[in-house]
Amino acid sequence: MEIKNIGEFELIARLTAGRKYDQSVVLGIGDDAAVIQAPDGGSLLACTDMLVEGVHFSREKTPPAAVGHKALAVNLSDIAAMGGIPRQALVAAGWPPGCTLEYVDGVYEGLYALAEEYGVNIIGGDTVRAPVVTINVTVIGESRGKAVGRNGARPGDLLAVTGRVGAAAAGLALLRAGLEEVAPEGLEEGTERAGVRGQKPGLPETVREDLLRAQLFPVPRLRAAAILMATGAATAMIDLSDGLAGDLRQLTAASGVGALLYGDELPIDGNTKAAAAFLKENVLNWALYGGEDFELLVALAPEKAAETREKMKAAGVALTVIGKITPAAEGLRILQDGRITPLKARGFDHFFPSS
Amino acid sequence: MEIKNIGEFELIARLTAGRKYDQSVVLGIGDDAAVIQAPDGGSLLACTDMLVEGVHFSREKTPPAAVGHKALAVNLSDIAAMGGIPRQALVAAGWPPGCTLEYVDGVYEGLYALAEEYGVNIIGGDTVRAPVVTINVTVIGESRGKAVGRNGARPGDLLAVTGRVGAAAAGLALLRAGLEEVAPEGLEEGTERAGVRGQKPGLPETVREDLLRAQLFPVPRLRAAAILMATGAATAMIDLSDGLAGDLRQLTAASGVGALLYGDELPIDGNTKAAAAFLKENVLNWALYGGEDFELLVALAPEKAAETREKMKAAGVALTVIGKITPAAEGLRILQDGRITPLKARGFDHFFPSS
Repeated sequence: MEIKNIGEFELIARLTAGRKYDQSVVLGIGDDAAVIQAPDGGSLLACTDMLVEGVHFSREKTPPAAVGHKALAVNLSDIAAMGGIPRQALVAAGWPPGCTLEYVDGVYEGLYALAEEYGVNIIGGDTVRAPVVTINVTVIGESRGKAVGRNGARPGDLLAVTGRVGAAAAGLALLRAGLEEVAPEGLEEGTERAGVRGQKPGLPETVREDLLRAQLFPVPRLRAAAILMATGAATAMIDLSDGLAGDLRQLTAASGVGALLYGDELPIDGNTKAAAAFLKENVLNWALYGGEDFELLVALAPEKAAETREKMKAAGVALTVIGKITPAAEGLRILQDGRITPLKARGFDHFFPSS
Repeated sequence: MEIKNIGEFELIARLTAGRKYDQSVVLGIGDDAAVIQAPDGGSLLACTDMLVEGVHFSREKTPPAAVGHKALAVNLSDIAAMGGIPRQALVAAGWPPGCTLEYVDGVYEGLYALAEEYGVNIIGGDTVRAPVVTINVTVIGESRGKAVGRNGARPGDLLAVTGRVGAAAAGLALLRAGLEEVAPEGLEEGTERAGVRGQKPGLPETVREDLLRAQLFPVPRLRAAAILMATGAATAMIDLSDGLAGDLRQLTAASGVGALLYGDELPIDGNTKAAAAFLKENVLNWALYGGEDFELLVALAPEKAAETREKMKAAGVALTVIGKITPAAEGLRILQDGRITPLKARGFDHFFPSS
């Protein structure tokens, strides 16, 4: 049997079935990051992600700084989803021999810019030859309180999401439509505004750039995670990498609960709606199944929700209640236009790209 | 400029020049593993390595268990070279869609078999699509005493190496000559002895299997590292990944010293010599430039050398004095057949394969 005939989660389950850990491991494979007992009684967090040219990004369409940024950002997002603080990163990179030094420099500029912004040390790595650009980042972090897994949600908890959903999918759709030019902020200040070339009439430049940035330079929600740890409101948490519907399925499965999603409350912003109208796409599909928003999906203890939302607001981070946790028997449902229907399972899976 | 025109070390130096760490980092990029201050005053170690099909191994010639074994072993060897104890591993893997499940299973069998042997937990990972099989392992370890870097060697120290040198290169030469069949110990007990097919007359089966095993299933020198930490004899240490000559150059450059190598004292065993005679290869080239022996090259405080060698012997690990550390001005030299000549620099570099 070839692995293209098996899903990613099924493959991981197969490879890790029956494997054991020693007592130093608080949480192993299956959450956003692993949790290890630190010598002083605190927790160490660790996660790793591989980005492959032609699968996760295109060398032509993605600025090199965005590749470096994203390779680190997806890991910082995993640390955020545990309520952690990232501290150290290791970067292993595979380069085709014909890759230019300028390209490699660009990838590292993106990596270091983000690392410095969040006080992360790049302490080690590996450099090898590879047929396509391959960047593997591992991040080690720490958790001051008890790390938040995916498995603590209880019926009655509120379901909330940071920021906005669907914007990264909108940016990806713009890339695929050939509207890809974007000048990474602060990295190519000397270059001409390249955006005009690929622009189609009808979608303002600022909208296009905002959505491309959401796709190319996702912001890990570390500050939101710190607030959630301070209020102790999060009972379970996951970052949105595979799409809201798929990631909600992960969280509820790990917690043994169901959920009702308020479809009309999803924080889909005007830019995303404008792009959907422009490209004649279904904006709710982007929001539910698009993936790569790297927002935090959180189950909130209801009694701590108000304080948390207030602190988020003061910090400039939106936190929107988009549903509630229900008993497992109720499954995953969505309330929309006054009707409750089952939430369809269709997430982004790199073994079966959805488009 | 394309990166094929730049060496690996030059590329790393370029990408990391001027980068800073915060005070949690004891030793950053440039040693076998990074050293981080642990909360309790001890040290955490971390390293990462990427293995790429077609660059580091061939899917046809390398048993899948060997790919998994080696991907972890090279990292355990890096932890050993710091005098550390490996604790946790993260495995990110890229698979071509046409790869069989049996192949993937085999890689993970090799990974878990080695992890369990050394008490390492595989706590996380990533599974993605990739054009060729790509395995990236990150290992987190700890050091009970002060981690041993490459930079502590002093003139007057002895230079010693564990085990034997040149065997992995001999195994690689046998693979390249089409003599690749080997049954991984304990993994394919039910299968027929496959070795006969590729065997040429004149090289005993046991010799061929021993050397292939050295190349395919290298043993990380963790027990030797533990003895060296117990006696405190090692002033500097590196593992032999790029070849004795190249790795000695790294160690002496980091320490700011020179070295005299006793060419006639290198532990090249009878099997390796037999394979060199059989394939009409220069056995000293294998020993000095072959790479991937994953033995420890150690600068030894002379007053602690005897005790260390005795403890090694009791543990069944050879430790051979193969030279001495000299002042930097004397450079790198080799004594052979009564003559001292400069040691030529020619190591294994994955950007410029030497064959």
